[in-house]
Amino acid sequence: MGKNILVAHGGGPTAVINCSLQGVVEAARADRQVDHIYAARFGAEGILKGDLIDLTDVPAAVIAKLGHTPASAIGSCRRKLTDADYPTVLETLRKFNIDCFFYNGGNDSMDTCNKVNELARKENLDLRVIGIPKTMDNDLDITDHCPGFGSAARYAALSAAELALDASGLPIHVVVLELMGRNAGWVTAASAMAARLTDCEVLTYLPEVPVDEEKMLADIEKGFARGRGLLVTVSEGVCGLDGRPLADTGIVDGFGHKIPGGAAQHVTDRIIRKLGLKSRAEKPGLLGRASIPYVSEVDREEAYAVGRYALEAALKGESGYMVAIEARRSPRYGSSLFLAPLDKVANVEKKFPPEWIVDGNRIADEFFDYAMPLMGDGFPEYALLRK
Amino acid sequence: MGKNILVAHGGGPTAVINCSLQGVVEAARADRQVDHIYAARFGAEGILKGDLIDLTDVPAAVIAKLGHTPASAIGSCRRKLTDADYPTVLETLRKFNIDCFFYNGGNDSMDTCNKVNELARKENLDLRVIGIPKTMDNDLDITDHCPGFGSAARYAALSAAELALDASGLPIHVVVLELMGRNAGWVTAASAMAARLTDCEVLTYLPEVPVDEEKMLADIEKGFARGRGLLVTVSEGVCGLDGRPLADTGIVDGFGHKIPGGAAQHVTDRIIRKLGLKSRAEKPGLLGRASIPYVSEVDREEAYAVGRYALEAALKGESGYMVAIEARRSPRYGSSLFLAPLDKVANVEKKFPPEWIVDGNRIADEFFDYAMPLMGDGFPEYALLRK
Repeated sequence: MGKNILVAHGGGPTAVINCSLQGVVEAARADRQVDHIYAARFGAEGILKGDLIDLTDVPAAVIAKLGHTPASAIGSCRRKLTDADYPTVLETLRKFNIDCFFYNGGNDSMDTCNKVNELARKENLDLRVIGIPKTMDNDLDITDHCPGFGSAARYAALSAAELALDASGLPIHVVVLELMGRNAGWVTAASAMAARLTDCEVLTYLPEVPVDEEKMLADIEKGFARGRGLLVTVSEGVCGLDGRPLADTGIVDGFGHKIPGGAAQHVTDRIIRKLGLKSRAEKPGLLGRASIPYVSEVDREEAYAVGRYALEAALKGESGYMVAIEARRSPRYGSSLFLAPLDKVANVEKKFPPEWIVDGNRIADEFFDYAMPLMGDGFPEYALLRK
Repeated sequence: MGKNILVAHGGGPTAVINCSLQGVVEAARADRQVDHIYAARFGAEGILKGDLIDLTDVPAAVIAKLGHTPASAIGSCRRKLTDADYPTVLETLRKFNIDCFFYNGGNDSMDTCNKVNELARKENLDLRVIGIPKTMDNDLDITDHCPGFGSAARYAALSAAELALDASGLPIHVVVLELMGRNAGWVTAASAMAARLTDCEVLTYLPEVPVDEEKMLADIEKGFARGRGLLVTVSEGVCGLDGRPLADTGIVDGFGHKIPGGAAQHVTDRIIRKLGLKSRAEKPGLLGRASIPYVSEVDREEAYAVGRYALEAALKGESGYMVAIEARRSPRYGSSLFLAPLDKVANVEKKFPPEWIVDGNRIADEFFDYAMPLMGDGFPEYALLRK
């Protein structure tokens, strides 16, 4: 009898999360051992309800479109499983005779994944459990980087460059751009690329270094006065000297984490009121994880590869691991995959190295050495005629 | 002796404004009559200061990059010229022996253009004045559409579709997207494409129809309850039943127009407080006019063509006109250019036809028949597996 597999998505999607699904499905179809391919409809919710989608006979042409479909094509959720939920999870796995379970997510999902694996061992269930990494926040430990980050970083870098050109070509206001990433500054750091690609002044604020708002305003005033336009990029989770977020939406997500947001509007309000300058706050928000035209090709390929690798590892009998990425950056970028124990990655948050933040508002070359290969090729050269 | 030409940008840029500049410059270089090619540094400001950029010998490879450079490569401004300024403008035109003057802008700029032309006639200055249309708002009269609109519409349509997929794949909150366009709903209307490209509920609110906020909230509650996710798209200039904007930044631009913004955050706040639902407001703002990866190829080509046409018309001796676009949409899209008298287009605002707004929050097919060819080819087909 063949093997049945189940894939589920957990938490917020990335622009390439469906590429990992495509990788799992295409690898499963290429392997004769696999009988049925299931996906959980809306992640843990679907598993708890026994609501699975049968992907076994979905046409190959539809599966191929996953490579260019943003968000979760099978649905995701933010439900944090409690101890009371796990027996129900196992019930579904038994009911559908699942042999291999793949959970595609971030820190919280790897915790879930780890618990399912431990429970299956305890109950002598013949189940392989493999975590597939995914988070635009890039805050999973052990892996060099996370699928989804390269595309979010490319979005941040190019959007910031495009806004910077708008700001320097019509320098009538300070433009403030807010980017996602919760408590991790990885994505926002990529926006500092705007200083490398354009002639505009750029100041960047990450959540890892508390912001002295008085100094921030003084730097903004000085930067704008140079007359080359000014772009300020802030992470949604940026904090003041008191350690509290500059802005607070007052909303808590399904995992109990505070939802940040409004930092750019807060800074803009201060610029207008305290400095008397014009200012605009822009917040593409979820677009930063959903935009297909800004996807990094390297990220797309790696997201696909971790899906394939997960399927192959499970069929070889591995269980209790997350697929992780090892990267080399010299003489040119390349990566390979390996298995990291789930209990080592669950609930650990990899912060942006504070030493890569210079004077509180610039990003060190070390970050760009790390991140540029992940953002993909084809950085634009702009025509700047007004110098 | 050869002719000298001057190009200037006025008001906010579009993603393809530099394509029109490229069109003027490349056509000028191909014509032996042209001696010097000048551009005003930061638009009217540069003209008033006599601060021109000499583009005559800029390498062709740099000029070619204009096709993929957002914002104004020569700089723009929002300075509204007063009667006292016009003699200084003519002084600069005389000083540099300008024979042909091209002003690339929207309603306000066409007014400036018209006044320069009239003054030149009055003072017997041998000057050809041609306006080059540009505005993402699509509110210039006579022309079928404005260069810059197609790309802004494509940005709105695809961004909305990507957000809609995020909202329907993880239906934990109502996502509200704010789009630019001041008092004109053209760009926001394009966001209703999301309903055609995805499985998500979409409600769209334009400035042309005053919004009954109670009904809006009732429709949002009903739409979200269907469980397929809900995307609400609002124009930055959307107004309540009292005719006043739902949100007010309190800022006025250089032309004396109020700068709108904050409508999405306002709607989100109401959804959270009145309906008790989770909600996020996203506001890509200026990104909607600066994003190169979302540029419409049709728009790029037309923006280039109006630049070329302006140069050729001026060299033929025409003056006092704006280049306008005539379009046919059947059996397939095509366009041609003609000259429209400047005094007919100056200061006239073409509003979105209210009859294309259905029940206050949906967009009629007539709009898509009009706008889809302008947004370019290659609309994505997504893989939606969760149905």
